[in-house]
Amino acid sequence: MLKILPADQIEDVLRKNIIGRLGCHADGETYVIPINFVYDDKGLYSYTLQGKKTAMMRKNPRVCFQTDDMGNGNWRSVIVQGVYVEVTEIVERHNALQLLSNRYLPFVSSVKSHLGANWPFHPGDENEIDGVVFRIDVLEKSGRFESFVYAPTFPG
Amino acid sequence: MLKILPADQIEDVLRKNIIGRLGCHADGETYVIPINFVYDDKGLYSYTLQGKKTAMMRKNPRVCFQTDDMGNGNWRSVIVQGVYVEVTEIVERHNALQLLSNRYLPFVSSVKSHLGANWPFHPGDENEIDGVVFRIDVLEKSGRFESFVYAPTFPG
Repeated sequence: MLKILPADQIEDVLRKNIIGRLGCHADGETYVIPINFVYDDKGLYSYTLQGKKTAMMRKNPRVCFQTDDMGNGNWRSVIVQGVYVEVTEIVERHNALQLLSNRYLPFVSSVKSHLGANWPFHPGDENEIDGVVFRIDVLEKSGRFESFVYAPTFPG
Repeated sequence: MLKILPADQIEDVLRKNIIGRLGCHADGETYVIPINFVYDDKGLYSYTLQGKKTAMMRKNPRVCFQTDDMGNGNWRSVIVQGVYVEVTEIVERHNALQLLSNRYLPFVSSVKSHLGANWPFHPGDENEIDGVVFRIDVLEKSGRFESFVYAPTFPG
């Protein structure tokens, strides 16, 4: 049975993971998409290309974010209720891209492949026209975990 | 860059995976939760306990489901737009539980631990009072994939 995840574990899950799912809603449609992210004290940062999800979140910035992991026999899941904010201020935008870049380098063998050919880019590059940096400001965080008992399988 | 996932690959992703994320929306709130699932020709089946997500989906049955995997150097993601239907008819409910049970047995060492102490149960068990079997009827399926190039990492 799922149990409440303590606050320090919620922070740990948000800091240790790099992929989550973002849920947004506009015009009667709900949409769930996987996103890259990095968590810092201001919220979650992510980078994407303009498209359906950015259009939806511009219409309705109230979003839900979920991420989870498995470690030490515990499955841990965190849900964040938050607000989508597009980051256009040049210093914050640059810092967010640097945070994302630093966070992803140890995990993927080719960051360029993972995040698109124009990654990492620098403010002013013509390639960045379609790139959107956004922040999810946290309204509420909650978490659950489940401990797995590694017992032999017994059907029935 | 993300590319369109062919229809046969969409079916393959839905058949091969057992965990996805479900997005629902009610009263101005979007909610994303991980769920177990099994896919068959009628749609997706899942089992959960009554709670926030079932209350929300009873209010607004239009949902979005997402699942993804990584195989052969490709990251594949599928998004399903669908309708939540609670399964109460006894034969379909029993069959859905059997499908879920069969699907999970090879993956978890203790199904009882993973799905709760009352799993698997049989119709009529008093333990099943809080258990909800539901189906997501598919309105639309779409998929994307990305090929990873396993090249050495080069920062900057």
